[in-house]
Amino acid sequence: MNSDINSGALYASRLARVRKEMQQLAIDAVLLSVGHDLPYLTGYYAMPLERLTMLVVTCDSMPTLIVPKLEAPRVTPHDDVFKIVAWGETENPVEIVAKHLGGAKRIAIGDQMWARFLVELMGFVSGASFVRAVDVVGNLRIAKDANEIAALQVAGAAADRVASQLQAGEISLVGRTEAQVSADISARLIAEGHDVVNFAIVAAGENAASPHHHPGSRVIKQNEIVLCDFGGTYNGYCSDITRCVFVGEPSRKVTSAYSVLRAAQAAGVAAGVVGATCESVDMAAREIIDDAGFGDFFIHRTGHGIGMEAHEEPYMVSGNKLPIAAGHAFSVEPGIYLPGKWGMRLEDIVVATDNGPLSMNNVDHSLVILN
Amino acid sequence: MNSDINSGALYASRLARVRKEMQQLAIDAVLLSVGHDLPYLTGYYAMPLERLTMLVVTCDSMPTLIVPKLEAPRVTPHDDVFKIVAWGETENPVEIVAKHLGGAKRIAIGDQMWARFLVELMGFVSGASFVRAVDVVGNLRIAKDANEIAALQVAGAAADRVASQLQAGEISLVGRTEAQVSADISARLIAEGHDVVNFAIVAAGENAASPHHHPGSRVIKQNEIVLCDFGGTYNGYCSDITRCVFVGEPSRKVTSAYSVLRAAQAAGVAAGVVGATCESVDMAAREIIDDAGFGDFFIHRTGHGIGMEAHEEPYMVSGNKLPIAAGHAFSVEPGIYLPGKWGMRLEDIVVATDNGPLSMNNVDHSLVILN
Repeated sequence: MNSDINSGALYASRLARVRKEMQQLAIDAVLLSVGHDLPYLTGYYAMPLERLTMLVVTCDSMPTLIVPKLEAPRVTPHDDVFKIVAWGETENPVEIVAKHLGGAKRIAIGDQMWARFLVELMGFVSGASFVRAVDVVGNLRIAKDANEIAALQVAGAAADRVASQLQAGEISLVGRTEAQVSADISARLIAEGHDVVNFAIVAAGENAASPHHHPGSRVIKQNEIVLCDFGGTYNGYCSDITRCVFVGEPSRKVTSAYSVLRAAQAAGVAAGVVGATCESVDMAAREIIDDAGFGDFFIHRTGHGIGMEAHEEPYMVSGNKLPIAAGHAFSVEPGIYLPGKWGMRLEDIVVATDNGPLSMNNVDHSLVILN
Repeated sequence: MNSDINSGALYASRLARVRKEMQQLAIDAVLLSVGHDLPYLTGYYAMPLERLTMLVVTCDSMPTLIVPKLEAPRVTPHDDVFKIVAWGETENPVEIVAKHLGGAKRIAIGDQMWARFLVELMGFVSGASFVRAVDVVGNLRIAKDANEIAALQVAGAAADRVASQLQAGEISLVGRTEAQVSADISARLIAEGHDVVNFAIVAAGENAASPHHHPGSRVIKQNEIVLCDFGGTYNGYCSDITRCVFVGEPSRKVTSAYSVLRAAQAAGVAAGVVGATCESVDMAAREIIDDAGFGDFFIHRTGHGIGMEAHEEPYMVSGNKLPIAAGHAFSVEPGIYLPGKWGMRLEDIVVATDNGPLSMNNVDHSLVILN
């Protein structure tokens, strides 16, 4: 791990900023469990299991990490930053959390905390109201610092190398199932340095019209498009890229749609400048697809933020008036999906900087033809 | 997929039982998202992402699966069982959920739903109260039917084959890191038929004293214990097994502690009979470890339920007076952990039947010595 990304001093400074946000928003306590806010502030990832892990942050006392006794050895302590309370198998951890709340009335809850713990907590804190912790911690996480941008670049370059292998024909396609190609891409993501694979969508022909297609037993044939959308986590930060290849000779309709898609994606990237709204990135890409008559077939937003999490703030979607700031990192990934026929998507990760959009992905953007 | 495990008729009958439970418990609506209650009732797994998927079950209208438009093609429809409502990128899915609640006042929430959606929902249903959906759906899921037990047996046998490879010395240990051995075991779980690996803990020497140790760069040496706890999902149902091996010559202390552990585990299995309480399984194993003087070093409950989920009801823990019923499936996994020195755990999955406990794992229970 990069010591600049994981140090007690960094966690302490982030927690200080969290408390400043809490005071401004009149939030008495922040509760973080499963999800990425917790490691962002402490370096520790809660196990996504039924035994509760919870960081309690209040305005006036030391943050407390409440953790199952048998998982306590997993925590790297930072004694100046947070206190550790280990609970035993016959204790009620939610009651312990409630005791650490110090009478908090307005409580911010981590987005991905299991709802069961919030339901249980309501039994201990009658009269409290709840807001989303993303309103507090999200304001910090959304703007990446120089070390985080460097981490995104390393992850992006590793994903690019796998995309480049795909485009060079090194990943054999015809005659294999989508699931086999997905497993092959996954192994290559690891071989190129990722710690875990987050997803590896492989969708052939008509399956490519389902944006979140689950790769299955469908065998890839000659003369069809193969959409590959994959990413993983590398030293705590995520990659995410989509490239399409065509095995054989694409029809004129496919090549002309791809030209539209490529222009739309480039326009979306170019629109991702500091000061522009998030929705303007969506509009820039959508306008080109609309004008070409494919508007009804671009059925999702243009992008999502990325960082420690594969999808996070800010979202490039109509209605999001948030101005893009330096350090915002997000995908630009328009698509065109013809149900029952084919689909295509083109995606890069982009970081907004004062010098304009900086792309984490730089591998060939064309529809590479393989034979 | 086994058609008996995944059919519309099965889902319909389970949903009818859910409604009966709802009426008995005076629950107006059940909301299910990420987690295993949803696939148990519909066959569909929600993607664990920020776009909401939610099944709304009320007492009097057709269950409704609210799903992101771009993920709708992933759903296998069962038109007689549930209705599908696809929401677009600029709609608010929580508002759509609220509209389908029909004025419900007492709402059961799926355990693993992201808390953000419950926080958002509270803004639309003032005056509602919330309970855990496990109180409703858990009552069904806890007792496995014949097809589910067969699925657990298939998964258990696949995990046994990997354990057997470990015990035969086919998985090389000395000189490799825990992470490398974990990756090796993971690949073997897949090769033996699992669809996904849920975990593969490999903990050597003093690391074995951390029950949920994360396998890392620690190189395995001669003359130490190696604890391997691994499992995956095979056709929708989970395996979970722990075996320890010793590379070299164990000390008398280690072999005698292991004898205690083995006796404790066997006693726990034998106690898992229909009509006994869950806590009596814990007590049976714990008593033997206590009597041998290792009580302070057995720092976790004896077991957890298992099924579609790696950890689910019922839990074999002190205080749980629930009587074991036929079809309850659970782990029996006592451990002895000496901080800084070594740890050991022995685990099988057991299903309670009217003919006594039936073990899903039957591979050698001894501390196999490898050289």
